[in-house]
Amino acid sequence: MSQTKYAIGVDLGGTTVKLGIVSDKGKIVQKIALDTCALDGPEKVVKQIKKGIKELLGNNKRKIEGIGVGAPGLVILKKGTVENPPNLPGWGRVQLGKRLEKEFNYPVFVENDANAAAVGEMIFGAGKKHDNFIMVTLGTGVGGGLILNKKVYRGETGAAGEIGHVSINREGRLCNCGMPGCIEAYAGNNHLVNIVNEQLPERTDSLLYKWINDEEKVLDPKLIHEAAQQDDKFACEVITEFACNLGSGLASIINLLDVSTVIIGGGVAGFGDRLFDAVKDKIKERVLKPIAPRIKVKAARLKNEAGIKGASSLVFLRG
Amino acid sequence: MSQTKYAIGVDLGGTTVKLGIVSDKGKIVQKIALDTCALDGPEKVVKQIKKGIKELLGNNKRKIEGIGVGAPGLVILKKGTVENPPNLPGWGRVQLGKRLEKEFNYPVFVENDANAAAVGEMIFGAGKKHDNFIMVTLGTGVGGGLILNKKVYRGETGAAGEIGHVSINREGRLCNCGMPGCIEAYAGNNHLVNIVNEQLPERTDSLLYKWINDEEKVLDPKLIHEAAQQDDKFACEVITEFACNLGSGLASIINLLDVSTVIIGGGVAGFGDRLFDAVKDKIKERVLKPIAPRIKVKAARLKNEAGIKGASSLVFLRG
Repeated sequence: MSQTKYAIGVDLGGTTVKLGIVSDKGKIVQKIALDTCALDGPEKVVKQIKKGIKELLGNNKRKIEGIGVGAPGLVILKKGTVENPPNLPGWGRVQLGKRLEKEFNYPVFVENDANAAAVGEMIFGAGKKHDNFIMVTLGTGVGGGLILNKKVYRGETGAAGEIGHVSINREGRLCNCGMPGCIEAYAGNNHLVNIVNEQLPERTDSLLYKWINDEEKVLDPKLIHEAAQQDDKFACEVITEFACNLGSGLASIINLLDVSTVIIGGGVAGFGDRLFDAVKDKIKERVLKPIAPRIKVKAARLKNEAGIKGASSLVFLRG
Repeated sequence: MSQTKYAIGVDLGGTTVKLGIVSDKGKIVQKIALDTCALDGPEKVVKQIKKGIKELLGNNKRKIEGIGVGAPGLVILKKGTVENPPNLPGWGRVQLGKRLEKEFNYPVFVENDANAAAVGEMIFGAGKKHDNFIMVTLGTGVGGGLILNKKVYRGETGAAGEIGHVSINREGRLCNCGMPGCIEAYAGNNHLVNIVNEQLPERTDSLLYKWINDEEKVLDPKLIHEAAQQDDKFACEVITEFACNLGSGLASIINLLDVSTVIIGGGVAGFGDRLFDAVKDKIKERVLKPIAPRIKVKAARLKNEAGIKGASSLVFLRG
């Protein structure tokens, strides 16, 4: 008989609910995906989640320890309540955890998706050996989670970890949140695409210019990465500037928290060493001197299935 | 018989060691001050501290619970080791806590002075009702302490809480730490005096101009405050700008930590409502919308004897 334990991880997204059975070593042994049906309202979304879990449990013979859910929006741990997720219209407040516990009779752990990603890295990924780290998830927005003393630091209401809304310039670029200079305004995907678009007419000698104008390729962060890998000067400059902005912001956070490890995930994190080295250099340059030698910048390990794995890790952390 | 408990608080400064016997209600019942004798090296400083404590204990009949020490520099809790305090030359590492415990046979609690000030506010002052708050101490520098879940948050090495070295402008004014845009570079006393000096020649109609040029008063933060109290336009502008800079930086910290209460101490905090209102307005304007209604900005209550009281509070917190 195997000693391996399993948990169900539910990654609740605005378009798709991804679910999987995950081992305590972080291996997904079975997975499915369903439409979230967000436009049909919260009751339908809850139905979809239940349907997915039933399907996973249907022909399962493994011992399941519990169900973990990573959800967008604010999560109140008590009753696993999910509040106003930004991309699930008409949601309001749903006691998701309580309802799933009642239905399936397993312990259910609900957490904000950014925090779940951080827990995933702590339990299965790049954060295993670290009691403290700052998790940054780069995407359209810049999300974050703080692991302090091997726990998610949640703040007063569960909203802590908004790394994207630390400002690096009180009179800087306007963020979607309405405020100037947020890290998100400089290190979100949109900004990356925007600055290339802005400067492209003057960079006619760049690979990016050729690809976008002559070959009609779509400009996205991946394309910038590909150009940088071929040493395109313009693309490299854009990535370096991006990393400097991110690194400057992280340096402030590190000074405040005295936490020296940063784990970076999300699509842009695939930019590899060039990005990580530049972020690390900038942090080291900017933090208070005694902290500099301890700085570590690591790539998240969970990659594509970070959502399901992160959600399942909540069970292994708290269970 | 009284049920009141007492502790000795030691406020170790670069020039003076202040010591007192403090009740668990935060009342100083006896106090003394000695030269630190910093230039004579650490052994002499330790001797001075011991001398002060002996003097306090000499004719004391109260029940003493322990000794608390607020020290500059990095403090390692184990053995109460004080490392490289910036204004105590040749210090290196001294196991101050262990040595005082051996000498006096009381439990000894050593903490960094900024953290001790935060504990003081939590136990005796404006932080009594708050499980979480951000303590800011305004002076030559901008110090800080983070109280999270009724405990000092110390970070990996005890250096956490460096609010002064959160940057509000990645290309801004150079701070003494060598980095650009730190809150300290905008909200330290020196900056306040510098901007008045810079702009004074053009503000000949201001009270400050009259006082400094005609009456040869010394320009310091207090003078700016006095002018502002008489509604001097220039002085009010300076204080508002100061508060805006501080408030912008605090907003980032609040977004990150989801902690909604700020307690401000130090000399400049005496600037009163004008400062507090401006800081609060700026924070509310800049934080993520759901946090804004919860924001509280309070004046520290311990004032002049914050050092002794903060140090003694370490005993009541941990004892």
